[in-house]
Amino acid sequence: MVQVHNFSAGPCVLPQDVFKEASEALLNFDDLGLSIVEISHRSSNFIAVMEEARSLVKELLEVPSGYNVLFLQGGASLGFLTVAYNMIGAKKKAAYINTGSWAEKASKEFGHLGEADIIASSADKNFSYIPKGIKIGDDYDYLHLTSNNTISGTQFKHFPSSATPMVCDMSSDIFSRKINVADFDIIYAGAQKNMGPAGTAVYIFKEEILGKSSVKIPTMLDLNTHAKKDSMFNTPPVFAIYVSMLNLRWLKRNGGIEWIEKVNQQKADLLYNEIDSNPLFRGSTEVEDRSNMNATFLLTEETLTDTFNDMWAAANISGIKGHRSVGGYRASMYNALPIESVQTLVEVMQELAKKHG
Amino acid sequence: MVQVHNFSAGPCVLPQDVFKEASEALLNFDDLGLSIVEISHRSSNFIAVMEEARSLVKELLEVPSGYNVLFLQGGASLGFLTVAYNMIGAKKKAAYINTGSWAEKASKEFGHLGEADIIASSADKNFSYIPKGIKIGDDYDYLHLTSNNTISGTQFKHFPSSATPMVCDMSSDIFSRKINVADFDIIYAGAQKNMGPAGTAVYIFKEEILGKSSVKIPTMLDLNTHAKKDSMFNTPPVFAIYVSMLNLRWLKRNGGIEWIEKVNQQKADLLYNEIDSNPLFRGSTEVEDRSNMNATFLLTEETLTDTFNDMWAAANISGIKGHRSVGGYRASMYNALPIESVQTLVEVMQELAKKHG
Repeated sequence: MVQVHNFSAGPCVLPQDVFKEASEALLNFDDLGLSIVEISHRSSNFIAVMEEARSLVKELLEVPSGYNVLFLQGGASLGFLTVAYNMIGAKKKAAYINTGSWAEKASKEFGHLGEADIIASSADKNFSYIPKGIKIGDDYDYLHLTSNNTISGTQFKHFPSSATPMVCDMSSDIFSRKINVADFDIIYAGAQKNMGPAGTAVYIFKEEILGKSSVKIPTMLDLNTHAKKDSMFNTPPVFAIYVSMLNLRWLKRNGGIEWIEKVNQQKADLLYNEIDSNPLFRGSTEVEDRSNMNATFLLTEETLTDTFNDMWAAANISGIKGHRSVGGYRASMYNALPIESVQTLVEVMQELAKKHG
Repeated sequence: MVQVHNFSAGPCVLPQDVFKEASEALLNFDDLGLSIVEISHRSSNFIAVMEEARSLVKELLEVPSGYNVLFLQGGASLGFLTVAYNMIGAKKKAAYINTGSWAEKASKEFGHLGEADIIASSADKNFSYIPKGIKIGDDYDYLHLTSNNTISGTQFKHFPSSATPMVCDMSSDIFSRKINVADFDIIYAGAQKNMGPAGTAVYIFKEEILGKSSVKIPTMLDLNTHAKKDSMFNTPPVFAIYVSMLNLRWLKRNGGIEWIEKVNQQKADLLYNEIDSNPLFRGSTEVEDRSNMNATFLLTEETLTDTFNDMWAAANISGIKGHRSVGGYRASMYNALPIESVQTLVEVMQELAKKHG
């Protein structure tokens, strides 16, 4: 079987070891003679999976005491509504920073409950930068951020400091770098980038927010519902949580966040250095805001498009076509993407320059 | 590997062939050299999975034209809210039949939007029967039913006929018997019984209901959001849908609903006949309302509890302890449970009677 270099923006690459173990557990989990997906979620075997997953999140991200970790159904899109319901307070206003399509969608959901103010935006330049020097008034229940813009390839390198409680959608860069959980009231993330398969989302939140909402929350959208039942109020998405747990084990075994942050920086440096030094390419975003997860770039000579596409395809590179709203290319370099895959892409870019530069 | 007789109430048994194929696809799907969970949900390979899953539902349940089929994130618990939002009309009242815990929870979610009337209930006898002769007034936007009560082991054998639009949670018996889809405005079901692994829910609904809600619906809870995007508005729970598709293929290959309904009847007859003829056991529910999916029964001699528990455990039977609210035993006999497993349980019951009867 040929190795494919999987630069997919998500669902995306996970470690081969994780796929192997999950594949075996689908036939025989914990030597029970049963598949991981056919056992009761109330069995001690599955409760152990859930508890290990929650505890690995706490350990890897150094989650401080007073915070809870839950794995819930749905992705970040449902999270937009969940965080709005749980964070709306007496002010009934929330501040959103619009760094792209996902941030915009998040703000729209708050509109069902109160007034969402876009207090900063990079829409004027197709979300190719992260707004700086943001001032936050004191009339908001919370400030909402999207840490990494998967589509445009931008990333907050420093989060604003704010007296207003902060909520962050970290779907596309959680577990990729050190963060200070205590800076946020809620961090939430869909699984399908650095965590696991699509189908679950993790919520990391300050326990003191529970019960403070100024509106009545539907049962399944209330973090308190799930907190009281240790993330087992209803049948959880068993397989997605199991594979997330395996993947977090892999991360811990290899050195945790400190290790992966270095690896991710090496991969990003390798590719961005090539983009900057190769005359046939240019980056799509402001240099200082470049995402270490999703590198977006364009050919300077559009006539070479077919040639380049044929070359990377021949090198077994997959998933680097840019999002239709940005064009060009997007190389997603999530945790499990080996540096060899980035090296292969860089070599193809160099070969293109050598032949056609 | 010893064969385990998996009577778990859900997540539950699926066909071994399905586990095998899913296990292989986790390593190499469609011969892409990639796992099913690491490819883009926008790839032609995954779109083919989604479309086949939707079309198998239509074919197996003979879904009439004018109906749509979607696979969404979350389970039936989120569905309680989703159907409420999509079905609430000018009357702002809905009728619920309370046949147990799940029906009760469903009615509670409607309470966020309007007034939920419990028009019939079997709470007086711990949900051991299905209310009959139900009269439905004309002042309701819809009537909500739960087709099968997994906990008590009761099942609607005939649905009420109603001029009021009907909505049915069929989580625990969908695909187990012939139904007339045209009788319902929405049928919804969490996957983890007869469909697939936990983590997705199917919605089968009349397209003319879309856009008729009397309230503004949050994006992710609006069936129209997902209908417009062919169930691909956001990243779907890829793996749960893929395995559901494999399982529906298995059902079709073996003879579809007509075949499985007969098999399920044989399994139910085998077990209920034993419960009725063996002096050491008695059923927990009204005979005419007995579920073909979940058979609940009690020992007539409680002193034999440990003996019986040891005997079925020794026969590699798993998951037959009753729900704490009912006690005794619950043998769940979903589609993929082989009749041999029921035979094994019956033999253990007969052996108990022979030794201690």
